Amino acid sequence: MQNILDQVYEQAVQYTRFGKVADYIPALSLCDGSQLGLAMATKDGQIFSVGQAEQRFTVQSISKVLSLAYVLTVSGEDEVFARVGKEPTGDPFNSIIRLETSARRKPFNPFINAGAIVVSGLMPGATPNERIERFCHFLADLVGQDNIVIDATVYQSEKATAARNRAIAWFLKELQLIDGEVEDTLDVYFRQCAVLFSAVDLAKFGLMLALDGWDPCQKRQILIPRQARIIKSLMTTCGMYDGSGEFAVEVGIPAKSGVGGGIMATVRDRMGLGVYGPALDERGNSTAGLEALRRLSNALDLRVL
Amino acid sequence: MQNILDQVYEQAVQYTRFGKVADYIPALSLCDGSQLGLAMATKDGQIFSVGQAEQRFTVQSISKVLSLAYVLTVSGEDEVFARVGKEPTGDPFNSIIRLETSARRKPFNPFINAGAIVVSGLMPGATPNERIERFCHFLADLVGQDNIVIDATVYQSEKATAARNRAIAWFLKELQLIDGEVEDTLDVYFRQCAVLFSAVDLAKFGLMLALDGWDPCQKRQILIPRQARIIKSLMTTCGMYDGSGEFAVEVGIPAKSGVGGGIMATVRDRMGLGVYGPALDERGNSTAGLEALRRLSNALDLRVL
Amino acid sequence: MQNILDQVYEQAVQYTRFGKVADYIPALSLCDGSQLGLAMATKDGQIFSVGQAEQRFTVQSISKVLSLAYVLTVSGEDEVFARVGKEPTGDPFNSIIRLETSARRKPFNPFINAGAIVVSGLMPGATPNERIERFCHFLADLVGQDNIVIDATVYQSEKATAARNRAIAWFLKELQLIDGEVEDTLDVYFRQCAVLFSAVDLAKFGLMLALDGWDPCQKRQILIPRQARIIKSLMTTCGMYDGSGEFAVEVGIPAKSGVGGGIMATVRDRMGLGVYGPALDERGNSTAGLEALRRLSNALDLRVL
Amino acid sequence: MQNILDQVYEQAVQYTRFGKVADYIPALSLCDGSQLGLAMATKDGQIFSVGQAEQRFTVQSISKVLSLAYVLTVSGEDEVFARVGKEPTGDPFNSIIRLETSARRKPFNPFINAGAIVVSGLMPGATPNERIERFCHFLADLVGQDNIVIDATVYQSEKATAARNRAIAWFLKELQLIDGEVEDTLDVYFRQCAVLFSAVDLAKFGLMLALDGWDPCQKRQILIPRQARIIKSLMTTCGMYDGSGEFAVEVGIPAKSGVGGGIMATVRDRMGLGVYGPALDERGNSTAGLEALRRLSNALDLRVL
Repeated sequence: MQNILDQVYEQAVQYTRFGKVADYIPALSLCDGSQLGLAMATKDGQIFSVGQAEQRFTVQSISKVLSLAYVLTVSGEDEVFARVGKEPTGDPFNSIIRLETSARRKPFNPFINAGAIVVSGLMPGATPNERIERFCHFLADLVGQDNIVIDATVYQSEKATAARNRAIAWFLKELQLIDGEVEDTLDVYFRQCAVLFSAVDLAKFGLMLALDGWDPCQKRQILIPRQARIIKSLMTTCGMYDGSGEFAVEVGIPAKSGVGGGIMATVRDRMGLGVYGPALDERGNSTAGLEALRRLSNALDLRVL
Repeated sequence: MQNILDQVYEQAVQYTRFGKVADYIPALSLCDGSQLGLAMATKDGQIFSVGQAEQRFTVQSISKVLSLAYVLTVSGEDEVFARVGKEPTGDPFNSIIRLETSARRKPFNPFINAGAIVVSGLMPGATPNERIERFCHFLADLVGQDNIVIDATVYQSEKATAARNRAIAWFLKELQLIDGEVEDTLDVYFRQCAVLFSAVDLAKFGLMLALDGWDPCQKRQILIPRQARIIKSLMTTCGMYDGSGEFAVEVGIPAKSGVGGGIMATVRDRMGLGVYGPALDERGNSTAGLEALRRLSNALDLRVL
Repeated sequence: MQNILDQVYEQAVQYTRFGKVADYIPALSLCDGSQLGLAMATKDGQIFSVGQAEQRFTVQSISKVLSLAYVLTVSGEDEVFARVGKEPTGDPFNSIIRLETSARRKPFNPFINAGAIVVSGLMPGATPNERIERFCHFLADLVGQDNIVIDATVYQSEKATAARNRAIAWFLKELQLIDGEVEDTLDVYFRQCAVLFSAVDLAKFGLMLALDGWDPCQKRQILIPRQARIIKSLMTTCGMYDGSGEFAVEVGIPAKSGVGGGIMATVRDRMGLGVYGPALDERGNSTAGLEALRRLSNALDLRVL
Repeated sequence: MQNILDQVYEQAVQYTRFGKVADYIPALSLCDGSQLGLAMATKDGQIFSVGQAEQRFTVQSISKVLSLAYVLTVSGEDEVFARVGKEPTGDPFNSIIRLETSARRKPFNPFINAGAIVVSGLMPGATPNERIERFCHFLADLVGQDNIVIDATVYQSEKATAARNRAIAWFLKELQLIDGEVEDTLDVYFRQCAVLFSAVDLAKFGLMLALDGWDPCQKRQILIPRQARIIKSLMTTCGMYDGSGEFAVEVGIPAKSGVGGGIMATVRDRMGLGVYGPALDERGNSTAGLEALRRLSNALDLRVL
């Protein structure tokens, strides 16, 4: 297995040169675009990795999966999906329009910004600090870290330049989909995006989803299987931005990417996968990461579709 | 003339019972819906009035005309209309959608909330306080009051319940149509909506527009004629919310209404008209005010279309 | 008056060089872009004209006014406006989207294609031939011609290249806003667009509207005043395509243009105006025609706003 | 296996009473809503079935999968996806709006009506007759029938009441996404929807997809694996109308339903499944069919997500 991973790395790392690191905030533009890290956490408890698999980076949109999983554990399916849908949408991730024209009057799913902000609004706790602390505690248990670090520079940058997300959040307030203070909810959201994870951490989280909510390290059921399936279904239909359809064809497994360069993927009953490759294609997905997952899917017959 | 005004009042005041005072904020719901005030300022400098024509009330959306006139005097047409269009729209006044889908990426016109907030953002001054003070000074000169009063309760109420306007303003920030602080711009906007005017004040303002920008009291040209025409054109096409088309047919003169119960109208080269009638129809226009203007238009052949 | 018209012509004809004749169908591209014709029909029955004022051309979108006037005479306001709105829209003239998203489920007004097709569907008659014949009879009486000619080449060209209008018409059928055969309704619509009128004809029609429906030639009331006002209101808010707002500022009278180069305008209680100038600006309005109307409005103080 | 299928049938057939047969055309409303047929075609060539599994019914929207598979074999991926996207959409299946507002100017995917009509327009042949004959020949080979029957009554009914589909098709013509005659393309589309298949036929087709394009009966590769994956990806993201997200959670395999009561599903490397159950839920999916697939997925651990 390590052998396969090494071979895939050798070939996929060539693709870093076809992408560019995100530059919409200064902190992200400092990443080294030539890096690639791959990690695999298998059902039997083994971790394989290659390249910069221990390098930490901000999870960005992958946090939408992390927060959804967390909020499902504390609020349950009904409360969450009373405020956000489960259906894919062809709109861009940061669209506001559908909130106004859709008969449903709620975001289409938790993986567009509007839906993710609603989910962040459901995190329990008296203050933003308390909410994010509890969330980080949940994450730390899952990936076996002592504590989760949030990149303060990235968090502050995002917070300072988030006019569109503020517009979305206030519209959600108008629709009564956020209960507390709008700025508090946004604060939690910006912080969760700046959570630092490594490819290995992502692989561990992916394994928990692959096992329908069972965490083999803590030896406990984190999510009920139906919750894990909801998450994986959403990852399949809307995990890779505008490239979700193409990814399903090319790789064929549930995955979620972030503009920090991460991709988390999950293969039912077999493994979780984590990728770090900050050079992105024009859709915001890691170029080398896509290539690595494509090759792994072929080499290990991971495809489920 | 006074005779005609009296007769029109007698008949129109019956229509107060077909409307309801605005109740989306508590301060407005306390108005006496049975009231009606009519005022007319004629070219020769006379003021005629009947009913509660001296009663002050918050101008609300009529402030969109006042602020546009003011900003045109300080910034000029080019600067204003670089950020907001001049074309009517079939959308509701508080719609956000068109900002996202329209190729123009600016609000359709200054009489929908998005456009009015952009205009408020152009008021000069270092602080919200200074901006609103200068604006009120402009208004005071025009209507011959010593000072303009802002209803603090209404202002605070609006400010506290304005999620949708905040969403709009942040979206405008994202589109770089607001330069300063979003919350400062909103603060100016909420205050201008709470400016207290009487029907007589509205009539005076309308007369200035009727005279293509000439103020017969101050004996000076406030707006250049083209600016006055722009304002009157916009009043014709989008002054009466969703009822603009119907109003053009029934009354046929430029007018602008507000949910405080006011209507300001203007008849080229003849007169300005002011109405106060807080009982509103379902579109937000004063029921008795509409009837009064319809009767006045017929009695005095005011129709221009 | 003739003098003023001559002077205006001399200056406006220079503007033909700033436009281009329509070329979306071959028949229109053969027009001579350097031509300009102006006609004025005054309340006292006089006709003034200059340039190619007798030259016939296809009325195109001006037919939307002609057909609306006609259908109002045979069906009345209620029947017409049960199927089409009276409100302006910021959408392009050939948009289909609002039929799907608007809660009203009917076209915004009769001057966008969707609305005009609905109006054509209300023309009485057993066959398309009979419907268009009756309509032409109505027009002939109004402009004092023996018969109305339809440009067969233009009609056939439009009919052959009208995929978008067919899409609109079938959507109207789905919404049950067209009763008869879709293709029959479209046939009537394409023919009415190819009606040949001169600037003088347009001026006569405009005069009838200016006189609130009274035709001084036939000495009879064609439209009831309220119907004439509806038409003039719609001309004011949506008569000049995307340039309606600008036209209201610059000229300030109700008008309707067509891509054949025509503009019909109307000044309450004073006159009707007709223009022929096939060189168009990018919005589809005659460049020289706009300039001529702007100058006439200033010279004769026609502005009503 | 037969045993499991029988048990599932016994329980799922109870759910027929929670649905209603389609009634938008008379021919469909005559179906017996209490029927249920289940069929399974396994990798080793066996067919299992229970209930009305041999009963033929119109495939309706399932034809969108059949035609896409066929056109991919004759035109290839590039030609097809130059005219239609691969991404899911949150819009209703019969929406027209996105063609106008989307920057892509092509239907989001081949499983909404607009996309399916584009695909039908790519079937080779000089006439509609020839096109549908070749398509039926392709289907007959696949399911091992001598010939494919088209339900003439259903076809004629659909053809007579298809205003919205005609609107969509003309809009596609405008966008140059249909090359031939619009009515010819629609004729092919209406006929393909009226193809008669049984649950067994669907299961055989589903098996071919499960085997990545290999047909074990004809012993030949029908689709290249990538084409089969595209189809299965699309089935996963948009196969079950507005219920696609929910189906992915509950059942977790690629599937496509039709309002004739059919569902075709496919389990990678294992089997194809066919369902007939004309009693539908409010989304247009067979109530008993959904229940049967849910139980089969659990009993046989079919879930891939």
